Amino acid sequence: MESIKVEPGKTRVGWIGTGVMGAAMCGHIMDAGFSMTVYNRTISKADGLKARGAVVAESPKQVGEQSDVVFSIVGFPADVRQVILGESGVLAGLKPGGVIVDMTTSEPSLSREIFEAAQAKGCNAVDAPVSGGDKGAKAAKLAIMAGGREETVAALAPLLNAMGNTTYMGPAGNGQHCKMANQITIASTMVGMVEGMLYAHKAGLDVPTYLRAISSGAAASKSLELYSQRILQRDFDPGFFVAHFVKDLGIALNECQRMGLSLPGLALAQSLYVSLKAHEESNLGTQALVLALERLNNTKLPTIS
Amino acid sequence: MESIKVEPGKTRVGWIGTGVMGAAMCGHIMDAGFSMTVYNRTISKADGLKARGAVVAESPKQVGEQSDVVFSIVGFPADVRQVILGESGVLAGLKPGGVIVDMTTSEPSLSREIFEAAQAKGCNAVDAPVSGGDKGAKAAKLAIMAGGREETVAALAPLLNAMGNTTYMGPAGNGQHCKMANQITIASTMVGMVEGMLYAHKAGLDVPTYLRAISSGAAASKSLELYSQRILQRDFDPGFFVAHFVKDLGIALNECQRMGLSLPGLALAQSLYVSLKAHEESNLGTQALVLALERLNNTKLPTIS
Repeated sequence: MESIKVEPGKTRVGWIGTGVMGAAMCGHIMDAGFSMTVYNRTISKADGLKARGAVVAESPKQVGEQSDVVFSIVGFPADVRQVILGESGVLAGLKPGGVIVDMTTSEPSLSREIFEAAQAKGCNAVDAPVSGGDKGAKAAKLAIMAGGREETVAALAPLLNAMGNTTYMGPAGNGQHCKMANQITIASTMVGMVEGMLYAHKAGLDVPTYLRAISSGAAASKSLELYSQRILQRDFDPGFFVAHFVKDLGIALNECQRMGLSLPGLALAQSLYVSLKAHEESNLGTQALVLALERLNNTKLPTIS
Repeated sequence: MESIKVEPGKTRVGWIGTGVMGAAMCGHIMDAGFSMTVYNRTISKADGLKARGAVVAESPKQVGEQSDVVFSIVGFPADVRQVILGESGVLAGLKPGGVIVDMTTSEPSLSREIFEAAQAKGCNAVDAPVSGGDKGAKAAKLAIMAGGREETVAALAPLLNAMGNTTYMGPAGNGQHCKMANQITIASTMVGMVEGMLYAHKAGLDVPTYLRAISSGAAASKSLELYSQRILQRDFDPGFFVAHFVKDLGIALNECQRMGLSLPGLALAQSLYVSLKAHEESNLGTQALVLALERLNNTKLPTIS
C-alpha cells in the first residue's frame, strides 16, 4: 500500500471535533494552507472555522467523502467508535488510500480495531493522542504520540508539524499506550503536589511561601508550575477536565489489569479522582484533586487572591 | 536578646558532620572567609577540610566552645540529639549569644526542643534543612528552609548565602515542616515516574523513546530529569539514600498522625520505600524505588547503557 503524499493546497483535510483543543489544532492546519471540511456534534462550535473558510459537513461520513486525511479529537471511546466506525462514520465515506488520524485519548484496543478496519478498506489509520492541553494546542506546541505504520506517520509530517512535535511509538495502539503512561506519571505527581500543600497548611506554614521555597528544588514539576497557584486562588476552571482524566486513568487501569500489572499509585489516584465525580465535580479542571483531599481531612487551604 | 553579627574573618564558625553534603557546604563557608572548626564521627572524612585550614575538634562540645555559630548536618534525629543536646554536645560548649543551625532533615518537635534548650542558655537555634542533594551542595544552590527567630535567620545571611537560597518559614520547627511537605511532594512524584516507565515497558514501548516523548510535556518533573536515565542505566548509586528518605517519610507520617492528617499518597510511597529496606537496599539512591515496583510485578525494565 502506497503512503499518501501530503501537500498544502492539494491534500484535502477533514476534522471531526471542534472543541477548544480541536478548533485550535484545526486552525493551525488551515493556516498551513490546507483546505478543510469539519464536523462537530454541536454545529455552532464550528462557526469560527467556517468563517475562516472551512466547509461544514453534515456527518463524519461526509467529511470522509470529501477528504484525503481526516483527524478526529472527541470525548470518549464510544464517541470515537461512532464517528469513525459508525454507520455515518468517517470510514463509511473515506476512499481507498485515505488516512484517519484519531487524536482522542482512547483505548489502545480501539485504535488497533480502527487500524484493522481501515486496512480492510485500503485505508490507513494512526492513533495520535496529544499532551499539552489547551495552551499547547493554541501555541502549536503539543506533544503528539503516534502509533500506526511508520511511513504513514512520516507522510503526515506537514500536518502534524503544524500542531506540535511528533514521536513515533510503534504499531497501532502504541500512541495510546504512550499517553496512558504519561497520564499515570501525571496522576501521582498531582497527588504529591496537593498532599504537600495540605501538609504545609496543616503544619501552620504560609502556603505561598512554602511553594516559593520548594518550586525551584527537587520537588519541582510541570504540575506544580501549572496548578499550584490556581489551587491557591480556588480557580478550578478546566484546563483539562476531571471527566476526561477519570476516563484516561480508567483506561490505564483496564490495560494494567489486562497486562497483569499492579500500579498502586495509579489505583490510588484514580480512586481520588473518581470521588470528584461522586461530588459532581467532573466539569472542573484536574487541579480540583485538592477538593478530594480537603474533604478527606475536613480542612481547607486558604484562598489567596 | 541581641542578634549575633556575622562577619568574615571575625565570626568563628563550627561544623558538625562532614559527609558528602556537609563537606561541600562547609567548604563554601570557608571560601567566604570564615575560620572553621569541624567535627565528624569518622574523623578521616574531615581530612579534606583540615588540609584547607579547618581545625579538627575532638567532640561537638569542643566545636561549641570554639565557635560563635555551629552548623550540623548528620544522619538521623538520634544523631542530632546526641551532637547538639548530648553530654558532649554543642550546647554544652556554646557560650551565651551563640547560634546552633541544624541542617539535618529531622523532627520538627526536636527542632523546637533544641530551640528551647538554646534559649535557656542564652543562645539561639535555627532549623534549616535543605533540598538539592549533593549537586546542589557542591554548586552552592541549595534551597534552605529556615525556622526559628526571624532576626537570627536574617543575621546568618552571610553564611547561608554561601550555600544557597534561604526562605524563612516561621518559628522553630517550621523549616523542618517545609522540608516534610517537600519530601511528601517528591515521594508521589517518584511513584508516578516509575509506574509510568513500567507501564510503558509492559505495553511494549521503547522506554527511552517514551521518556523522550513525555519529558517536555505535562508529565515533566525534576525527578524525571534527575532519575529516569539513571534508572534505565540501572545506576542506583545514591544521590540521596533510601535510608534517609525512609526516615524523612516516617517523620512526615508521624507528624500527619499527630495533626490528624490523612495523606494516602504519602502512606503508599512510604510503604514502597520501606520495602526497599526489607531487601537491604537502604544504601541505594531513591531512584531504586523502581526495584520495589519491578518485584511487585515480576518484571524488569531493559538496561540501556
